[in-house]
Amino acid sequence: MQTDHGSIETPIFMPVGTAGTVKAVHQRELKNDIGAQIILGNTYHLYLRPGLSIIEQAGGLHKFNGWDKPLLTDSGGYQIFSLSAQRRLSEEGAIFKSHIDGSKHFFSPENVMDIQRTIGADIIMAFDECTPYPCDLDYAENSLALTHRWLDRCMTRFSETDQKYGYQQTLFPIVQGSVYKDLRIKSAEYIASKNAFGNAIGGLSVGEPAEEMYAMTELVTNILPKDRPRYLMGVGTPVNVLESIALGIDMFDCVMPTRNARHGLLFTQNGIINIRNEKWKNDFSVLDENGTTFVDQEYSKAYLRHLLVCNELLAAQIASIHNLGLYLWLVKEARKRIIDGTFASWKNKMVQQMATRL
Amino acid sequence: MQTDHGSIETPIFMPVGTAGTVKAVHQRELKNDIGAQIILGNTYHLYLRPGLSIIEQAGGLHKFNGWDKPLLTDSGGYQIFSLSAQRRLSEEGAIFKSHIDGSKHFFSPENVMDIQRTIGADIIMAFDECTPYPCDLDYAENSLALTHRWLDRCMTRFSETDQKYGYQQTLFPIVQGSVYKDLRIKSAEYIASKNAFGNAIGGLSVGEPAEEMYAMTELVTNILPKDRPRYLMGVGTPVNVLESIALGIDMFDCVMPTRNARHGLLFTQNGIINIRNEKWKNDFSVLDENGTTFVDQEYSKAYLRHLLVCNELLAAQIASIHNLGLYLWLVKEARKRIIDGTFASWKNKMVQQMATRL
Repeated sequence: MQTDHGSIETPIFMPVGTAGTVKAVHQRELKNDIGAQIILGNTYHLYLRPGLSIIEQAGGLHKFNGWDKPLLTDSGGYQIFSLSAQRRLSEEGAIFKSHIDGSKHFFSPENVMDIQRTIGADIIMAFDECTPYPCDLDYAENSLALTHRWLDRCMTRFSETDQKYGYQQTLFPIVQGSVYKDLRIKSAEYIASKNAFGNAIGGLSVGEPAEEMYAMTELVTNILPKDRPRYLMGVGTPVNVLESIALGIDMFDCVMPTRNARHGLLFTQNGIINIRNEKWKNDFSVLDENGTTFVDQEYSKAYLRHLLVCNELLAAQIASIHNLGLYLWLVKEARKRIIDGTFASWKNKMVQQMATRL
Repeated sequence: MQTDHGSIETPIFMPVGTAGTVKAVHQRELKNDIGAQIILGNTYHLYLRPGLSIIEQAGGLHKFNGWDKPLLTDSGGYQIFSLSAQRRLSEEGAIFKSHIDGSKHFFSPENVMDIQRTIGADIIMAFDECTPYPCDLDYAENSLALTHRWLDRCMTRFSETDQKYGYQQTLFPIVQGSVYKDLRIKSAEYIASKNAFGNAIGGLSVGEPAEEMYAMTELVTNILPKDRPRYLMGVGTPVNVLESIALGIDMFDCVMPTRNARHGLLFTQNGIINIRNEKWKNDFSVLDENGTTFVDQEYSKAYLRHLLVCNELLAAQIASIHNLGLYLWLVKEARKRIIDGTFASWKNKMVQQMATRL
């Protein structure tokens, strides 16, 4: 994928930088150590803090946080439902109360386009309703129709407005439809018809069994154009990522590598480590002998365990860099395997290995 | 100063790595970005967590935390009085309860030498009583006598035991005496008579006015041998550091640069910034145009303020690197000025500048 902030090699994993920062990680570490090619910002969070006025005065989020590579923002729809204190949906949009100070706000397809223009994302996401799981057919059907109508409004507004800071911005529509085959097919066909530069799949990884997620993903990737990036939003574990790449997914984002890191859960090629476990207490071997970042060679398992037990900030820093490094290695290796034709057998081996509890 | 882990150029500031980590800072940042030459570890904390068995199995703290330059440990005396849940002092030593789990422990001059041998510090501190401020003359007199008796026991034990990991360790005695001239003189003379490789001044910066601190420091540095490093423990602000260098101090440690960083207080050559202040909200200039670390050029004031307001971990990381970088720059510049004979006038200018509230 090409953007004015540089190219992105797919499949790619996008570290989540909720409030304009990938938690506990310096921008230069993202670039030089982890090898991140694109990061994600959350519209809901950035809109509330620091607010659009600050971001606009800075010249966009890239200038504000010093990240000069590609940037994607979500639409805020997901956070309105998962975070805000109170919300009311209507045809027009969503009224919600801030989870920070209870202040009242309104998001519509139109102003969410404007907000993302102002944040300055290279890739802007459509404003949609992300249905919960489980969700009855009636609700899912009505919600999908609303999401499609909102998409049209997003596209109209997007086409009527200009880029803000001298570089191209592009809009990705989002397939919804809960876990209903017919709805997912209908939505995928509708989204495909929009001929966007890239397309996303939303409303998965919200509590449904992994099999349902894979089934829906497969249905949808068979319909979305194969020559455009297909982005599975909010997914997932390394195993989820591998299985979804096999189904044709090109882009991922998830808080899991950083959030789990802060709780001491490390993903490795050989399985999952809970560094809090007593067994690592006097394991002075390097953090991850297969790891690709400096933390993997410079710190030991016993040292990281000690830091975590003591609630030291450095624990989150080390574990976050490790996990993100692993995710970025994983998608890079997948790309290599796809190109040399060994992906399927490699993937099956890795899925086995990486699900192990060490 | 020469140690088996490398040389140290004085005057020097030692970042505090309480539990074997300088909070929020990677070891490679300490070395490459901040230019730290020696860091401090706290015996009290390290003894409680991870505990001596783990540190010994690792081969000492250097091996455990990956810091391969010089290391100094304090004796734990200060923490017993400032942190522990309960303590009882006797001629023999101090019984105290852990602030973490209430467990009961005993420190004596002898076992504190053994503990620091095991932690593996290059520089080991004598076990002393750090008197509070204010402190009546009687208490100070008795306490000083005890500290001197304890010093003799420390030196005996130290000389009877061997280095543990194949490199030299050295013991610094500590001058006490509260803010009583006679006691300070008596103590300094006693400590000087021990002919140690280096000597420390304790019991200052515990609440007394700066003038008292400077007066006591001057008294003592006039007695301690000038050809050995003189270490003022737990001091202080950049202004305190500059004034004390003028009085002959060679070594400093303080939690201030890192602790204040976590609260958003930045020290700069031009004064003190409280980055939480509204005025920095849309100041997109670099964090510190005179700064020597990457964070000073790569992040803006407005961005750091945003991170701090949002309680983002990166805020502590950025501010800690900045403040430590400033302290290490300060002592390096002081050294240069001492050598070229312009220290006094430079110091007076800097003391004015750096005390300003920006």
